[in-house]
Amino acid sequence: MATALLPTIQSPQDLKRLKVDQLEALAGEIRQAICDQVSQSGGHLAPNLGVVELTIALHYVFDFGPKREGDDDDASGGGGDHLLFDVGHQCYPHKLLTGRQHLLPKLRQREGMAGFPEPNESDYDLFSVGHAGTAISTAVGMARGDELQGQADRRTVALIGDASIVNGVAMEGLNNAGTLKRQFLVVLNDNGMSIAKPQGAMAQYFDNVRVSHTYTGLKRKARKVLESIPGGSALGDIYHRCGEMMKAALFDGHMFEQFGLVCVGPIDGHDIKTLVHMFEEVKDIDRPILLHCKTVKGKGFEFAEGDATTFHSPKPFVVEGCRVEVKSSGRSFTSAYADAMIDLMERDDKVFAVTAAMPDGTGLAKVIPKFPDRTIDTGICESHAMDMCAGLAKTGVKPFFAVYSTFAQRALDQVFQEVSLQGLPVRVCMDRAGFVGGDGAVHHGFMDISMFSPLPGVAMLAASDEPNLRAGLEFMRQYEDGASFIRYPRDNVPAEPLETEVPPFQLGKAHLVRPGHNGRPQLAILAYGAMVYEALEALKELDQQGYDVALYDARFAKPVDVELVRYLIDSSTPVLTIEDHALAGGFGANVLCACHDEGIATDKIHRMAMPEKWIYQDSRPNQLAEAGLDAKSIARRVRAILDTNGDAPAATPHIHVNVNQASKVTR
Amino acid sequence: MATALLPTIQSPQDLKRLKVDQLEALAGEIRQAICDQVSQSGGHLAPNLGVVELTIALHYVFDFGPKREGDDDDASGGGGDHLLFDVGHQCYPHKLLTGRQHLLPKLRQREGMAGFPEPNESDYDLFSVGHAGTAISTAVGMARGDELQGQADRRTVALIGDASIVNGVAMEGLNNAGTLKRQFLVVLNDNGMSIAKPQGAMAQYFDNVRVSHTYTGLKRKARKVLESIPGGSALGDIYHRCGEMMKAALFDGHMFEQFGLVCVGPIDGHDIKTLVHMFEEVKDIDRPILLHCKTVKGKGFEFAEGDATTFHSPKPFVVEGCRVEVKSSGRSFTSAYADAMIDLMERDDKVFAVTAAMPDGTGLAKVIPKFPDRTIDTGICESHAMDMCAGLAKTGVKPFFAVYSTFAQRALDQVFQEVSLQGLPVRVCMDRAGFVGGDGAVHHGFMDISMFSPLPGVAMLAASDEPNLRAGLEFMRQYEDGASFIRYPRDNVPAEPLETEVPPFQLGKAHLVRPGHNGRPQLAILAYGAMVYEALEALKELDQQGYDVALYDARFAKPVDVELVRYLIDSSTPVLTIEDHALAGGFGANVLCACHDEGIATDKIHRMAMPEKWIYQDSRPNQLAEAGLDAKSIARRVRAILDTNGDAPAATPHIHVNVNQASKVTR
Repeated sequence: MATALLPTIQSPQDLKRLKVDQLEALAGEIRQAICDQVSQSGGHLAPNLGVVELTIALHYVFDFGPKREGDDDDASGGGGDHLLFDVGHQCYPHKLLTGRQHLLPKLRQREGMAGFPEPNESDYDLFSVGHAGTAISTAVGMARGDELQGQADRRTVALIGDASIVNGVAMEGLNNAGTLKRQFLVVLNDNGMSIAKPQGAMAQYFDNVRVSHTYTGLKRKARKVLESIPGGSALGDIYHRCGEMMKAALFDGHMFEQFGLVCVGPIDGHDIKTLVHMFEEVKDIDRPILLHCKTVKGKGFEFAEGDATTFHSPKPFVVEGCRVEVKSSGRSFTSAYADAMIDLMERDDKVFAVTAAMPDGTGLAKVIPKFPDRTIDTGICESHAMDMCAGLAKTGVKPFFAVYSTFAQRALDQVFQEVSLQGLPVRVCMDRAGFVGGDGAVHHGFMDISMFSPLPGVAMLAASDEPNLRAGLEFMRQYEDGASFIRYPRDNVPAEPLETEVPPFQLGKAHLVRPGHNGRPQLAILAYGAMVYEALEALKELDQQGYDVALYDARFAKPVDVELVRYLIDSSTPVLTIEDHALAGGFGANVLCACHDEGIATDKIHRMAMPEKWIYQDSRPNQLAEAGLDAKSIARRVRAILDTNGDAPAATPHIHVNVNQASKVTR
Repeated sequence: MATALLPTIQSPQDLKRLKVDQLEALAGEIRQAICDQVSQSGGHLAPNLGVVELTIALHYVFDFGPKREGDDDDASGGGGDHLLFDVGHQCYPHKLLTGRQHLLPKLRQREGMAGFPEPNESDYDLFSVGHAGTAISTAVGMARGDELQGQADRRTVALIGDASIVNGVAMEGLNNAGTLKRQFLVVLNDNGMSIAKPQGAMAQYFDNVRVSHTYTGLKRKARKVLESIPGGSALGDIYHRCGEMMKAALFDGHMFEQFGLVCVGPIDGHDIKTLVHMFEEVKDIDRPILLHCKTVKGKGFEFAEGDATTFHSPKPFVVEGCRVEVKSSGRSFTSAYADAMIDLMERDDKVFAVTAAMPDGTGLAKVIPKFPDRTIDTGICESHAMDMCAGLAKTGVKPFFAVYSTFAQRALDQVFQEVSLQGLPVRVCMDRAGFVGGDGAVHHGFMDISMFSPLPGVAMLAASDEPNLRAGLEFMRQYEDGASFIRYPRDNVPAEPLETEVPPFQLGKAHLVRPGHNGRPQLAILAYGAMVYEALEALKELDQQGYDVALYDARFAKPVDVELVRYLIDSSTPVLTIEDHALAGGFGANVLCACHDEGIATDKIHRMAMPEKWIYQDSRPNQLAEAGLDAKSIARRVRAILDTNGDAPAATPHIHVNVNQASKVTR
């Protein structure tokens, strides 16, 4: 494929110089560039391939980005229009058109192209986002802010998919967008796929719309539509001014019409000429408009078109003739979780598994076919999913809600009211706890302990490896005194766990996984979740250097094992807590506060946790290093503590005790 | 009015023995009982008066409550149907019909009738709720749980108002309810009022429906409706079986039809015979149905009908002839906030005020008429409102979002992503922080510090009195480095503030409000927000007993004034932090952790905060006492610390220094 056009586009101004006839070729080049890169590095593939033409047409017609200098008095424009992405994983074409082609080779890597919109990267990105449903609401705010400041000529466009638009925040946003009396365009990118399969009754509605409404067959009483919606008479005027294409595409009875929007389409989201024409027609209409575009997720890459779920955000892959192979990278916590759930559900027919649009991301894709009656994918609606779990628990079912830690934030109020206040045993399984690698700041799980710990009666667990994940889930299955939460990282499970069979979880009890070399170690590490194995790695270094450090898998951030800490402090053993969670309100904070309340001296307690700053896309190991939570940093911190304490290392290294034998000791 | 019927109703079984003709009289008695009680004690009036007939009809037709013993094999029923209230402030008629008339005289008081559904009070209440939008989602969970456990004959009904049903969680719930293939009834109580005025485009839609659709004038192609919705053919069968009334009332094109529900109505929600008839018709239809009922908020009490906003949840009032007088109870923080905002907005035309359906509760009702272009009520959608604020801030506007602390929980994820991650200066003003009195556990603000503190760059403030509230808001107006939050209680401002003019807020700096009697006090209290005046009251007692205690208004929970604490600890002065917030992750926890990180000894730091248990409806002073946060408890704690420390009180009381003079000293 020729690659003549894309390198010439360093900004949307360059794009505008092309003829409409050239745009399709440009689309092909963008598609190729994205496919080539994602096959090497992984990344969001199918969502980006679906919006190439949409993105080109938007930039061709609108004038996004900051107001350009010297153009302030130029009525013809000069930047200033706002483009807001919902979720944001469909921003690659946008980035390639706004001066960031040089960042593509390091997609989702440090100093490379972020996988989501990122204002630090370019002024063309307004919000760094990664959670669904927010674009319409922020767009409404920007539109109102412009109005207030005499900048009403700045246009606002929100690009949102059919899965996101039924999220609660998006629907709240639409309801308020419908009250605007100015230009406001929602582009609905309807690929009928959501992230996995579409869920909910409205997905069925969209299906019906896609089948029954085609742009070319439109014969609707558009005039009547305009009169029937709020502000009808003003729109009647607009009707006379708007072009034939838009008149023909007005949709009578689209559900979002009842949210106060003029609905247009569906039109073909890959027909670039029609898109350009339609955007030209709608761009200056001073009423909120929803343009419904039909697209194909994964468009142009046959494997992705055929399997958009697998190619939503694949790992690196190789195409060999008519076959594509996604590179394997070991057994993930997600896979381990799926198998553990299958085991639980085979043993206990009350166990019920829930996901909010993340069957692949959470591993439930493997569980759902085995237990169709005891699993549900609610679509992207974490708040609803949590409340549904509360309802299930109320009837005696044992719901396990598998959700990314970062998305659990969207259900805090439901955990408070419908779950904790009722004392209901809802189980929440939080994948992607801690650093998430390439997804970056929008997806780190750093608040799960702090946001849920204040709630009476909740139990907070973490899994350090697969045997502990299984044991933790079994504990939760049996735990009926309130809500319980378990967290685990976006990482592989340790290939060689310390123990293949671990002792059962006991509420608030840590587990000794590596004793010191003597009866009284120089220091005890209490590591939470994934940090256990990071600490274990640090111990190798410390062992060689002659330090004598014990390691506990803390297992619980609430309640914490105060008695263990009391025992250690009473034995004059310094304690170091380690967690991949914010310092504020995290595991270490809970240890510190609990000890303080119990009158246990805290001066020999030390804490390592995520720093209070945003850490951007990078590999997870690099992020841990940047945060000072990798094995090297842990070893350094231990030495700093012990050397300051005057506890110099022993002159000769102790013999390393047998780990498997040691780990059988449980306090 | 005769009161012959109500005392005979001790359970819904008693109700079912009445003839339909008697129900209207019963409605009158219930209305009278509620009016009489609320006029004495305050409470939610208008919402309850609006649902009297609906509630009677529901209990008359369905068989709510737990399965009754011995009825298990009785196919005719015997309890087991589920009734879920959304928001829940409309539950008084339900409580009077389910054995709780004896609790009414102590409405919203300790050991009296809770103002919201409360499972601890009765098995007829399934969830203790007070936050909007959740009933449909929990109902979906219960319906699915019943199915799974072979209890499909248990019917499920969710009662929800027109303001709540457009909340995001409710719409997510509807979207999933629409996929059910079983009985599921949503009763839409459409009073066209929301809590204040209806907001958003859909409110306009409901208005249109109310005007254009009347039950008696229905001539619709119901058959066509049934075929056009998902599962249409099955419903076609139902159509033949359903009665004439329902056939006539089927609504073609109701917006919630596109969520997959069969929509019926609107019908008159005060016509008890029609309601009974209609519930009989729909109760066994095995598809999700939305019954749209038109009601009048405040029905039957002329003052409430005419002014449903004032009588939504009035304080005690007296009716004198054709006049009603709501008892005044002093100047609230809410009023002080309103006046402070007016002042800010007069001085700075970038300031913009936002509320989510609480113009009265937050005081903005006074602000909105003065600044119609710089205020907005979004309706009940805190998530959307927060994102809209982010959008406003992005354009350079200074948004101040006035929201109850407990409802701020609904926007945590938006504060994370759209606000904090972008570093945007959104200002959040949290009324009802700490204990809220009669509203009880569903409304206490106990998590605002813990949930927002982990976010990089946020400033957390609290106001102890009106001058500090004004100074805090002025600080926030100028603070552009990130999001800022201020909290204040559901209480009156101190009538005689310590200082009428306070020094400006400085980021992370506490303010000395009452020095000790000597250069080196025996103890220093760092009180946060409302606890300053509680501590001041304690000082009176401690002064008399000869203790020498200094008092600081902490002002900031993030960042905390570490240097002050270092100075105090270095001077061997014990420190006591006091806050009306959860112990976990609160102000004291932040002080403790910050000191620990700085190597400041923490053994002389003591913390008082809300205990980890639910505290139910009661007066705010009683709740503070129960939590051990009233003046007496504070004094007791101070004595316990000092007496243990061996710092015995001075033999003779010191002379009390002049407070106003002392308070001018600011560190």
